[in-house]
Amino acid sequence: VRRVALVGTGLIGGSIGLALTRAGIEVRAVDADAGRLTRARELGAVAETTGSVAAAVEGAEVAIVATPVGRVAELVVAALDAGAPVVTDVGSVKAPILRAVHAARPDAAARFVGGHPMAGSEQDGLDGADADLFAGATWVLTPTPATDAGAHTTVRSLVGQLGAEIMEVTPEHHDQLVAVVSHVPQLAATTLMDVAAVTGDEQAMLMRLAAGGFRDMTRIAAGDPGIWPDICIANQDAIVTALDDYLRSLAVVRGLVAAGDGDALLQVLERARSARRNLPRRVTVAGPLVELRVPVPDRPGVLAEVTNLAGRLGVNIADLEIAHSMEGEAGVIVMVVAEAGVDGFEQALVAAGYHVARSALE
Amino acid sequence: VRRVALVGTGLIGGSIGLALTRAGIEVRAVDADAGRLTRARELGAVAETTGSVAAAVEGAEVAIVATPVGRVAELVVAALDAGAPVVTDVGSVKAPILRAVHAARPDAAARFVGGHPMAGSEQDGLDGADADLFAGATWVLTPTPATDAGAHTTVRSLVGQLGAEIMEVTPEHHDQLVAVVSHVPQLAATTLMDVAAVTGDEQAMLMRLAAGGFRDMTRIAAGDPGIWPDICIANQDAIVTALDDYLRSLAVVRGLVAAGDGDALLQVLERARSARRNLPRRVTVAGPLVELRVPVPDRPGVLAEVTNLAGRLGVNIADLEIAHSMEGEAGVIVMVVAEAGVDGFEQALVAAGYHVARSALE
Repeated sequence: VRRVALVGTGLIGGSIGLALTRAGIEVRAVDADAGRLTRARELGAVAETTGSVAAAVEGAEVAIVATPVGRVAELVVAALDAGAPVVTDVGSVKAPILRAVHAARPDAAARFVGGHPMAGSEQDGLDGADADLFAGATWVLTPTPATDAGAHTTVRSLVGQLGAEIMEVTPEHHDQLVAVVSHVPQLAATTLMDVAAVTGDEQAMLMRLAAGGFRDMTRIAAGDPGIWPDICIANQDAIVTALDDYLRSLAVVRGLVAAGDGDALLQVLERARSARRNLPRRVTVAGPLVELRVPVPDRPGVLAEVTNLAGRLGVNIADLEIAHSMEGEAGVIVMVVAEAGVDGFEQALVAAGYHVARSALE
Repeated sequence: VRRVALVGTGLIGGSIGLALTRAGIEVRAVDADAGRLTRARELGAVAETTGSVAAAVEGAEVAIVATPVGRVAELVVAALDAGAPVVTDVGSVKAPILRAVHAARPDAAARFVGGHPMAGSEQDGLDGADADLFAGATWVLTPTPATDAGAHTTVRSLVGQLGAEIMEVTPEHHDQLVAVVSHVPQLAATTLMDVAAVTGDEQAMLMRLAAGGFRDMTRIAAGDPGIWPDICIANQDAIVTALDDYLRSLAVVRGLVAAGDGDALLQVLERARSARRNLPRRVTVAGPLVELRVPVPDRPGVLAEVTNLAGRLGVNIADLEIAHSMEGEAGVIVMVVAEAGVDGFEQALVAAGYHVARSALE
């Protein structure tokens, strides 16, 4: 691939443009927002700006549609109509887009390969664009039996060039998966925050008691709401199914609380804890790993102190999270580090006045 | 107060012991776990260990019960029976404890003042104990019209000595508030994780797509499950009421998704966002504040780099959170800093290669 048409230059489009330009590929872009398009060229994300999808597509081997999900299908169709040999997209919902493209252009749809990079977010904007955004990230592709093999290969190769790891599932399966891990959590956090938000003195009291755990759970509710109605409508069926699962399970838990069934509650809690602890982490260090839990006070500099200590000792922190306790503002730094070298790090932390709990990872 | 009886020496009891000892108060403790009791003395949290509540209470002006919630009522009664002039506790549920104490000892119950410090967690253990754990934290007291005024004043003064800020509500009101901000969020996170946890390949795929937002929302599900059945049973009524509110609101949201009502969804999302953004922060800097949002890559040292930069410039970070985007592993450092001095900090961040979004706080 020597020339790519880029439709949409937000965070994802801009990052794709930066990465492709760095790889020596010529990127010609179009965007409904002329100011953003100019900014993309200034940032070096695109070589040339154009005023239409047809102009962007001319001479390009691949067109990438990187717009909000509600506009993807029509722009994929426009790119196919303009003669793009291969078209892909980055929309966070897949089956409805595939269906719309197939319905509109049954003969050309084979040249479209649906995609969804699990990196960045529509909320961040062009100024957060980064050529390395996709390095090591999962990029879902959703080819169907109708997909042209050449188009499929071209998109795989392009995504590989961006440094992403490819995972392929059906469009419907993709939509079910993201409903469970992304869309329903967003709605659950939003609703939890909404239920807690009452007015007046009551609110002030509630919020004085709302500490780290509540903040963790509702953090995603603080993001830009604008993208979600489109996603919810596009992925309606999968979200309703996953929400119904969640509602059913919550009703069971409510029943256990009402019945005072501590044993059954403990089972659910233990199952969830085990699943949460086994969430795969993005680990880049070799050999056995250990988890260190370090309770930390709520003051600036603590994180820097702990991470600097690791840096000075040459300890690579494979994963770091700050777990807030359910109550209070203080927290626990949870780190995953290679077993090799952990002794020195632990001793240094203790010498610096920290308490360290260490456990081997299963 | 010159002598305090401490019943229970976990994280909270141990921290109380350290703070009181530092203030020159003699702490005499009892704990069902003899090893932990010895460790508390070794840590300097208690001056003397005893083998019974009666022995601990002898000569003490106040007894503090700091055990898991399921055992609080019986130990409060034991302390009253042993002649403690004033008794308080740190249980995370209040009305059932008050009711049990009143039922068991109607005449002595006036000497008991219920309490709940919003700091630490039963999950952390004695080794996380810290004399400053309660500095600036909210400590809820739940006196009732039946409470003896002298007992009330004594407990207020003791809590003030620990550095905590006192908030007083009725026991029932306390239980409703913590159900909303603590107990229901725990059950919601647990259930979300449990619903997402299926077996085999499906699980591996789900978890490859489960990025920062999902991790934030389910983090509290990774904590020790053991404390929750007791809390759920003790606070049964308030939790069921709050869970029903949550279930009702989630069912409304499900209906909006099913109906494809984007406008109404946007309203809910915007209301929740506004409430989340207005969560009070623990702010210790004077003057107007600004919020800086800095997208950061997923590599060790980034936090240290950013916080060190602030340290070098003398910029006090009043609040710091790491907001994971819903997709991908990278995140955004969200900092609240004083407007005075923020220009230099922002310039230094940009010079170091970061993108910085700045906004004034309402």
